[in-house]
Amino acid sequence: MLIAKVYITLKKGILDPQGKAVKGALHSLGYEEVKEVRVGKYIELTFEDGDLSLLKDKVDEMCKRILTNPIIEDYTFEIVEG
Amino acid sequence: MLIAKVYITLKKGILDPQGKAVKGALHSLGYEEVKEVRVGKYIELTFEDGDLSLLKDKVDEMCKRILTNPIIEDYTFEIVEG
Repeated sequence: MLIAKVYITLKKGILDPQGKAVKGALHSLGYEEVKEVRVGKYIELTFEDGDLSLLKDKVDEMCKRILTNPIIEDYTFEIVEG
Repeated sequence: MLIAKVYITLKKGILDPQGKAVKGALHSLGYEEVKEVRVGKYIELTFEDGDLSLLKDKVDEMCKRILTNPIIEDYTFEIVEG
């Protein structure tokens, strides 16, 4: 079994209201040392075993076409044995 | 600058409707090889430089108290130089 772990973040400069809200909550509970919070997504895709380099291309394609919005989001991924 | 990268996933056995929807979308676009999809959160917390082991305890506390719901979610984190 192969697992693709995809990390999606908002591009720098894109406003992150959810991150701002989390930062506010942390500050109000006394964690003033937190300077910035950015909230993104983490997606795990599970596949049967197969050709790793083919799978990499496939996952990259899925990221571009469906999983992310390339205009406002960046992504990275890694594929591990599950 | 230190950055804590927090990865939050639903515990095994907890229903993940968002993951199910993403899987459905992937299948309908021809990516039938995807067996399972789980959607989680990825949070980046930025701090000034400081004591790493103190910071680890602090981030762990934040995860338990605010960032996650320990009943249905698991989390891991790492701290890197930013």
